[in-house]
Amino acid sequence: MQDVKSALVIRATAVQARLDALLPLISTPEGEVVEAMRYSALGGGKRLRPFLVMETAALFDVEETYALEVAAALEMVHCYSLVHDDLPAMDDSDLRRGRLTVHKKWDDATAILAGDGLLTEAFGVLADSKSHPDAEVRLKLIAGLATASGAAGMVGGQMIDLSPSRAELDLNGITRLQAMKTGALIRFACQAGAILGKAGDEEYKALSLFAEDIGLAFQIVDDLLDHEATPEETGKPTGVDSDAGKATFVGQLGLQVARERAEELVHLAKSRLDIFAGKAQLLRDTATFVLERRS
Amino acid sequence: MQDVKSALVIRATAVQARLDALLPLISTPEGEVVEAMRYSALGGGKRLRPFLVMETAALFDVEETYALEVAAALEMVHCYSLVHDDLPAMDDSDLRRGRLTVHKKWDDATAILAGDGLLTEAFGVLADSKSHPDAEVRLKLIAGLATASGAAGMVGGQMIDLSPSRAELDLNGITRLQAMKTGALIRFACQAGAILGKAGDEEYKALSLFAEDIGLAFQIVDDLLDHEATPEETGKPTGVDSDAGKATFVGQLGLQVARERAEELVHLAKSRLDIFAGKAQLLRDTATFVLERRS
Repeated sequence: MQDVKSALVIRATAVQARLDALLPLISTPEGEVVEAMRYSALGGGKRLRPFLVMETAALFDVEETYALEVAAALEMVHCYSLVHDDLPAMDDSDLRRGRLTVHKKWDDATAILAGDGLLTEAFGVLADSKSHPDAEVRLKLIAGLATASGAAGMVGGQMIDLSPSRAELDLNGITRLQAMKTGALIRFACQAGAILGKAGDEEYKALSLFAEDIGLAFQIVDDLLDHEATPEETGKPTGVDSDAGKATFVGQLGLQVARERAEELVHLAKSRLDIFAGKAQLLRDTATFVLERRS
Repeated sequence: MQDVKSALVIRATAVQARLDALLPLISTPEGEVVEAMRYSALGGGKRLRPFLVMETAALFDVEETYALEVAAALEMVHCYSLVHDDLPAMDDSDLRRGRLTVHKKWDDATAILAGDGLLTEAFGVLADSKSHPDAEVRLKLIAGLATASGAAGMVGGQMIDLSPSRAELDLNGITRLQAMKTGALIRFACQAGAILGKAGDEEYKALSLFAEDIGLAFQIVDDLLDHEATPEETGKPTGVDSDAGKATFVGQLGLQVARERAEELVHLAKSRLDIFAGKAQLLRDTATFVLERRS
């Protein structure tokens, strides 16, 4: 666990520096939107998705500068989704990572545009040869990101999360929602490593399944933390989903069964990595980290 | 002029059919966001940007299915920008193309997500080999679209348009704003044809300048129509910008000089096409159409 935490910090520091360079401040009149993009993208967080890109790419000895570039692009997309989801018209959150959300610090219009800008910029980064010299690799990354973040992925998941039928979802419905809203980008983070590494079908499939398992475990743990953790631990309000009457894993399964389910998924996730043998130890430890995190 | 109008209708019909196919209805719970995306993308309009993609590509005898795919992607981006710009937090418009805007027909959250979905989908379309078999061509299109629609283009332009200093922009400031907010995507539409056609530097440059000239003329005519046309003609409220105290080309130059400036730009635009000789006649007529349009 300590190794994972150290590795997360090291990767997060590199991603932070790269995002800083990819989103330079400008002094022209539109500079305010770039400031808001930077505020969101450089605002910290675990950087789990970038970490997964870099650690899965490392399985295939991908040159680190490529993995870092792709990791930064994915984090831009993650941050865009947070900025838009936090808007009053959506989840209406004032706090994120212990700081004011973008629309609270600026206004709704700036938050909408900053999110739009981050999403757009992410595709620009992936199109650039700094992400990988092979054009076909870059195009696979772009196509994969579009699928993971579009109506079949993140956007569709958020739509379900806001729909009137959200409160009555059954376990299958919640699982599908999670797979779209948060799972798709986590899965793509692991697939991106495989794409960068020109992995074979078996390796690509193994990493996809690993990501699906930890993605679902991640969401179940999120629900558990929403019940059990304090706002000081998570850096955002807790008890929100249950108070809003949303069906959650904990609500469907109860605390104990939900925790057992998360544990099973993490166990399963680790077994997906057997084909990588010792090289995947840090990723196995990451699955444990997902289970035991308190924020 | 009649030729341009007919050609616009023919191209618009093809783009409409392609958008319809690229955004299939789904019956799963997130289907509502796809309906909103379709409502925006299939809601008509002149389809000027797709037309420019297809007609500039035709200069180089690009296979029409490729140009149509790229045209549809660009129209998705144009529609996303309209959906977000119409939001209450931005321009707060109830009507667009004579119909309710997306946030009036659904709600703000759905409009934000539908815009996000259209932007994302556009990049997915360009990454697909249906847009062009050559990977390097697709990557150039993706990079160009990201630049045209990001903080240095459309997003940045909209940020300036909403900024407190917007009212006091001088003629240079308004021109820069226009070049970003609406000009960048019009320019990219013409550059896309050149990219698809693997144009030489001189041809690429000529089409870029043509696009800059008609883009600026287009905006000046927009300002003129905001003063002179009726809502029945334009399908949206008129007198909005001047009522809002925004600095406009007409406000800065007066009606007569503004019209003369638009005429000069269209004349200049046509001269940019000299290297294409007779093959570019329809594009020259398009420049005239931009000047004489009433909606």
